[in-house]
Amino acid sequence: MSPKITGELLRQLRQAMKNCKYFSEPIQAYIIPSGDAHQSEYIAPCDCRREFISGFDGSAGTAIVTEQHAAMWTDGRYFLQASQQMDNNWTLMKMGLKETPSQEDWLISVLPENSKVGVDPWIIAADQWKNMFKALSSAGHSLVAVQDNLIDAVWPDRPERPSTQLRSLGLDYTGISWQDKITALRAKMSERKITWFVATALDEIAWLFNLRGADIEYNPVFFAYTIVGMNTIRFFVDLKRLSNPAVREHLQLDSPSKPELSIQTFPYESVYTELQAICAALGPKDKVWICDKASCALTQVIPKTHRTPIPYTPLCLAKAVKNATEIQGMKMAHIKDAVALCEFFAWLEKEIPKGNVTEISAADKAEELRSQQKDFVGLSFPTISSVGPHGAIIHYRPLPETNRTLTVNEVYLIDSGAQYVDGTTDVTRTMHFGTPSAFEKECFTYVLKGHIAVSAAIFPNGTKGHLLDSFARAALWESGLDYLHGTGHGVGCFLNVHEGPCGISYKTFADEPLEAGMIVSDEPGYYEDGSFGIRLENVVLVVPANGSNTFFYTFSKYL
Amino acid sequence: MSPKITGELLRQLRQAMKNCKYFSEPIQAYIIPSGDAHQSEYIAPCDCRREFISGFDGSAGTAIVTEQHAAMWTDGRYFLQASQQMDNNWTLMKMGLKETPSQEDWLISVLPENSKVGVDPWIIAADQWKNMFKALSSAGHSLVAVQDNLIDAVWPDRPERPSTQLRSLGLDYTGISWQDKITALRAKMSERKITWFVATALDEIAWLFNLRGADIEYNPVFFAYTIVGMNTIRFFVDLKRLSNPAVREHLQLDSPSKPELSIQTFPYESVYTELQAICAALGPKDKVWICDKASCALTQVIPKTHRTPIPYTPLCLAKAVKNATEIQGMKMAHIKDAVALCEFFAWLEKEIPKGNVTEISAADKAEELRSQQKDFVGLSFPTISSVGPHGAIIHYRPLPETNRTLTVNEVYLIDSGAQYVDGTTDVTRTMHFGTPSAFEKECFTYVLKGHIAVSAAIFPNGTKGHLLDSFARAALWESGLDYLHGTGHGVGCFLNVHEGPCGISYKTFADEPLEAGMIVSDEPGYYEDGSFGIRLENVVLVVPANGSNTFFYTFSKYL
Repeated sequence: MSPKITGELLRQLRQAMKNCKYFSEPIQAYIIPSGDAHQSEYIAPCDCRREFISGFDGSAGTAIVTEQHAAMWTDGRYFLQASQQMDNNWTLMKMGLKETPSQEDWLISVLPENSKVGVDPWIIAADQWKNMFKALSSAGHSLVAVQDNLIDAVWPDRPERPSTQLRSLGLDYTGISWQDKITALRAKMSERKITWFVATALDEIAWLFNLRGADIEYNPVFFAYTIVGMNTIRFFVDLKRLSNPAVREHLQLDSPSKPELSIQTFPYESVYTELQAICAALGPKDKVWICDKASCALTQVIPKTHRTPIPYTPLCLAKAVKNATEIQGMKMAHIKDAVALCEFFAWLEKEIPKGNVTEISAADKAEELRSQQKDFVGLSFPTISSVGPHGAIIHYRPLPETNRTLTVNEVYLIDSGAQYVDGTTDVTRTMHFGTPSAFEKECFTYVLKGHIAVSAAIFPNGTKGHLLDSFARAALWESGLDYLHGTGHGVGCFLNVHEGPCGISYKTFADEPLEAGMIVSDEPGYYEDGSFGIRLENVVLVVPANGSNTFFYTFSKYL
Repeated sequence: MSPKITGELLRQLRQAMKNCKYFSEPIQAYIIPSGDAHQSEYIAPCDCRREFISGFDGSAGTAIVTEQHAAMWTDGRYFLQASQQMDNNWTLMKMGLKETPSQEDWLISVLPENSKVGVDPWIIAADQWKNMFKALSSAGHSLVAVQDNLIDAVWPDRPERPSTQLRSLGLDYTGISWQDKITALRAKMSERKITWFVATALDEIAWLFNLRGADIEYNPVFFAYTIVGMNTIRFFVDLKRLSNPAVREHLQLDSPSKPELSIQTFPYESVYTELQAICAALGPKDKVWICDKASCALTQVIPKTHRTPIPYTPLCLAKAVKNATEIQGMKMAHIKDAVALCEFFAWLEKEIPKGNVTEISAADKAEELRSQQKDFVGLSFPTISSVGPHGAIIHYRPLPETNRTLTVNEVYLIDSGAQYVDGTTDVTRTMHFGTPSAFEKECFTYVLKGHIAVSAAIFPNGTKGHLLDSFARAALWESGLDYLHGTGHGVGCFLNVHEGPCGISYKTFADEPLEAGMIVSDEPGYYEDGSFGIRLENVVLVVPANGSNTFFYTFSKYL
């Protein structure tokens, strides 16, 4: 993996930072977050601005460029990868280590007095804007919203925004109609005296309308916004996508069953002006719900006195608790996935000794076998197929120039999953096709103990997932070992493989308590830099614990 | 335990809430926090306003009185006790239960439109004020600072503020002189470009000056404030206390060694006007550090642009990491305590069968035996001496009307500790002098397993105590059991038995990482309402884990 050469690009960006075409006064620093206008984790090629400017293509990271410096913050999963993908114009800021400054502290330490720091208000979340704004102001600097994206200004061949075909899902896949979901949402709104709700997260919109797209690789979502009032539904999407008769029928665009379930459609781009119009007509007591992680640009349209920011929207919370149909679908998807993986492992066992299996060909074979399963749509994330030292690069993805051959002498780690119409899968297995070293066996045992400790845990109603995180680590800690990533994340049902609001990690306190019907991954690991990686992952379902006491939960081991 | 009759008191308070002597317009609700102007956990009798108005005397709780309602928020340790001490004018709000509204949500649900909610700005912490102010404002109400305390207005025989004799501690007890502590504080200030630091927590001030008092029962502190600049030290205290020659000499009041170590003394009450004078003279870049848990009244003296609120002050952080002299002192104190407790348990074994030992006489005997140990000063908290069902009242304190006799048929729980000049102790043992039931034995085993799991834990540098909390519960959880309190708290050295910034609890994420030299309690429990209580507590010291890897810590089992 050779780093991207970024000297000339950074020169152009620094030129743009001084160019009065974009703002009244030059800016001394420019922040490039990794998200899109919907704060998606995985993003479309047109939104890969942080990758374009730095070369680092991991799923999480924030770049900041000043006149003298270029720095990249990312977490433990990506330390190795980022250091390999970026040239020496860039400084890697290892998040989670004590000595690493926060973005705010670093900016304050390097900026000249009274500096201006720019950011695209569409790709910075409102809560991040607020924190950054406060920290910079208190140090005498200012944070300014730069409407034209400066990366786009130096990116001549930037791709178009995708607009793939929409797919509607029936009740046999979703369990609840979109009409019932709207009704349930409005009940939550009226309970909290909320008059409008602005949905910006792509997976929430896809879930709400029982629609799927393919705008972002691995994530069956589509670019859209939705604003729901007590009697109206406004849907912002590339209108060409609504010419499909099946979609028109699904959404009842031509013959709504009830006036309050009639969907008004608008072009994707008009969300800003429509929200402005809605806000101009608000009554004095009207309140608008918007996620505190929505874009700063859209959030600030809503006057502060009418704005009720929430960490998790009612759609996010409802989506996380799978209904019986979704649970059945997730089970079916994992059974099909298991069939494909068993075939794959048998194939590996036969082929590896011949010396012709590489990280890429193995990943391709796993995909080929999955694609033969019913209702296969695609992968749910890029397959991590890694041999030996590559296993220690936590989110490694094999490339032709790094591709390594599987042998009976090295550990093989495969973390992979698929999108099926009935559910999303995510599974990791670590194998050795010869004789592992004593240390490899020891570490495997600790990781397995951690995996089992989480999946066997019994915990009371109201427990947040982060309180289970140490169970996954105790066996490793006893031997002075640890891993620099969380233990689990929520998984969508034919939706994003990473979803909130629950998870199992030492890093967050803001997760919502685990509830029956939630589905999370259980994936502790151990990584020996330059040598091997071990990770063991199953996806597990929160269920009531056995016995008479109904206030305790555990995880179903049979998902 | 019979409840306090509060009907007439509440009538008088509600009268005061409408009395324009105190404010321009009547208030519709009045908040009575449990702290004093220093946000102390244990408070002097003159500050027991929440107890006076409600009857509930637990260490944590907030009362809110409206025209129609009177409600008390407290945590799981006090559910039983509060319900027994309060009459039916009061509604108990059980914090930590899902269905219990927050104070803000409850106020919003019961108040008429545009209500005014009053609070004494000296006894509400700045961060609590901020949250309450925000929540009430967004619902159309307002939070107002009522300068005259309305409880004092209906409390004719309110006690005087104590002013006990000060005791100075030499280097053999403290390990570091107050002069060196001031120098270290100033180094931290200059590192962060801070020009002034306002100390309001009584234990921080006592620790800083190596002085102790006895103003608050069980807590060897004294009422004072301190403001430290880069060249000045201002000490606010009842000036009569400084006539003691030993104290004058200790503080070098008559012959300071260096000008920047010269202490200027002021009456306790003048802190407000002195801070105003300091703030009036601030340069444009001057910054003032104050704890975000300091009183709203004092915090708001500092103009917002100059104010740098911090969750934990440098004194709090330095105090938590015990030096070698303090660690040695804490060990000595616990050894002496253990001698006294062994004598006590032997006495119990002999006396209980005779039928003459009660909860109170047992507590008195334990105190008597402790008082025979060298450098004994007093108890570190009211002894919890509880038999059978009383054991399930987590912070039970025996009173003549509840006093129960120890027998060979019931579980006995004693949670007690002392202040010695060399250290503070806190220990809990649960015993049965006959044959416990199978269920009692089972629960004892689970609690012991939890206690051992925490004390044997090995965890990496940077781990916050809350991540160890589930280790204490896993054995209980497996059987569908749990306990409604945290697992551990920081312990001061001849200071408060509860201190920050570290702890072991599911409830906080704001704790600081555990560091070598920190001392915390390890005290899981199980409580069977109406039947028995079990708690097993030792105080443990964070030490580097054995072996070559120095990035891991564990707890010393020999404190």
